[in-house]
Amino acid sequence: MSASVVVGVDIGGTKVLAGVVDRAGVVSGTARRTTPGRRVVAGQVEDALVEAVVEAAAGRRLAGVGVAAAGFVDPRGERVMFAPHLPWQGEPLREVLEQRLGCTVVLDNDANCAARAEAHHGAARGASSALMVTMGTGIGGAVLVDGHVLRGANGMAGEFGHMQVVPDGQPCECGRRGCWEQYSSGNALVRNARTLMGEQPSVLSEMSGGRPKHVTGPMVTAAAEEGDLVARQAFASVGDWLGVGTANLVAALDPEVVVVGGGVSAAGDKLLDPARAALRRALVGAAHRTVPDLVAARLGPEAGMIGAALLVSGVADAQPRR
Amino acid sequence: MSASVVVGVDIGGTKVLAGVVDRAGVVSGTARRTTPGRRVVAGQVEDALVEAVVEAAAGRRLAGVGVAAAGFVDPRGERVMFAPHLPWQGEPLREVLEQRLGCTVVLDNDANCAARAEAHHGAARGASSALMVTMGTGIGGAVLVDGHVLRGANGMAGEFGHMQVVPDGQPCECGRRGCWEQYSSGNALVRNARTLMGEQPSVLSEMSGGRPKHVTGPMVTAAAEEGDLVARQAFASVGDWLGVGTANLVAALDPEVVVVGGGVSAAGDKLLDPARAALRRALVGAAHRTVPDLVAARLGPEAGMIGAALLVSGVADAQPRR
Repeated sequence: MSASVVVGVDIGGTKVLAGVVDRAGVVSGTARRTTPGRRVVAGQVEDALVEAVVEAAAGRRLAGVGVAAAGFVDPRGERVMFAPHLPWQGEPLREVLEQRLGCTVVLDNDANCAARAEAHHGAARGASSALMVTMGTGIGGAVLVDGHVLRGANGMAGEFGHMQVVPDGQPCECGRRGCWEQYSSGNALVRNARTLMGEQPSVLSEMSGGRPKHVTGPMVTAAAEEGDLVARQAFASVGDWLGVGTANLVAALDPEVVVVGGGVSAAGDKLLDPARAALRRALVGAAHRTVPDLVAARLGPEAGMIGAALLVSGVADAQPRR
Repeated sequence: MSASVVVGVDIGGTKVLAGVVDRAGVVSGTARRTTPGRRVVAGQVEDALVEAVVEAAAGRRLAGVGVAAAGFVDPRGERVMFAPHLPWQGEPLREVLEQRLGCTVVLDNDANCAARAEAHHGAARGASSALMVTMGTGIGGAVLVDGHVLRGANGMAGEFGHMQVVPDGQPCECGRRGCWEQYSSGNALVRNARTLMGEQPSVLSEMSGGRPKHVTGPMVTAAAEEGDLVARQAFASVGDWLGVGTANLVAALDPEVVVVGGGVSAAGDKLLDPARAALRRALVGAAHRTVPDLVAARLGPEAGMIGAALLVSGVADAQPRR
């Protein structure tokens, strides 16, 4: 077997995931490594990355490797400028990996890769324009035009989480106040649940041993599944804010569809139903337009790998083109 | 003289402006008609439009006519779906005018046309991505990618004015509350000045005969020129909100430059200086990126005509491409 393969890699703060991605976006031969963390030298993270790629390729020739990195990537896709959980600061990752792997390497941030994957093989397939909103600890995202990710002049387009939605609102880790992700994210969900627990009986009290500090996002999701009122209210608030913030983006960009990904999106309609209602209420001209649907992402944790691999096969992005 | 010409037309609630636009974006032979208003039949507005085009062409053959309309245009550029100050509701303007004028006619909304003109011949020239924010009575705008306007699935992209910036804020004409244009627009400027007048001495009191209701936007601009504190405070607030709302758009889209047009932008740095300060303060990661400059539009009232004419010469838009 000497057929060549394209490998997609997703590197986050805790793990490296690599897999062979075929033309249909199907992943096989997945390999995983633990990310060494932020306090090591850059080369050690690259070791883990190369090992995962080599294992995934399983002796086949590499046609190319696409890397989805949890961090800021420069607009040319050469360097990881900064990554909150990795030691890279301006690391010329593309060049380093090309030398080590002996093949073409392309690089983009993980939210862009996930969005590109959903556009080509997932929930936004067939749409000429889409937004992706990624709800994890915070909010990330991407703007898709004709299946291409809008990268932005600094490679920083899609930073939806820090749009200000409440003047002088909740303090944010970014140093400002009232950022969208303070009202609609995994952190916001947990904060809502902790606050509401003190006011009403809830199965979350049992789950957390009566300690609000021990409440986690998955606990809130599980409690909501059981019909717990506190958990459902926590989701209703986060979902409402998801719809309000999305309405702002839809007013500006008028996409065909909005894909919601990230860990919190696993809650499905518990999150999306209140968000749909809020979008319809908050969107300008809703009565005179086709309001885009809010749909859950389909590709799950493989989206980053798939979207990175798509870059290898020459799916260029919308900007910069020159 | 039988050289053919391209005519650009800008049709708003009060007037039709037509002019010959050359390849360099220079306008000549301008003709003007009064818009008959909303209570007439559609054909009467089209009469005024055709007359203005014929006068501008001055006997030369029409290579094509581009129309910038103050209203919602469908995403294919065929119809004016709705125009607040004109009798059109789903009017197939493109087809009607092609039959009457005997040449190719293209159609887009006025904010998109102005943005396209600024991208090709004005303040955003040379930028691969830009935002245009149009501050008149309210806020309109457009998103530019590679000099092309992002039109959106419903042709409604760029409705920046109705992004919610204050939960349960000022009531808006759109029926919702807290829309951006309630805090940053010509109307907001006048409202600010009227409120502040009651609290402090101001030359606006003389200008308006002591009647806050008689204060107009141009009066506030003139008073600010004279150094009037109330007028300057009114601009500072509108400018601050311009920066905050722009920061949200820049977080999402990361453009190279932001062009501010519309009547209020005539105030120049009185508006733009506080906006620049607020943008830098409110933008995520401002220390780690090139913060786009806020610049005044350059083409003034000719922008609509020029941008409409550009459509004739085959400058396609970014979406839909199919």
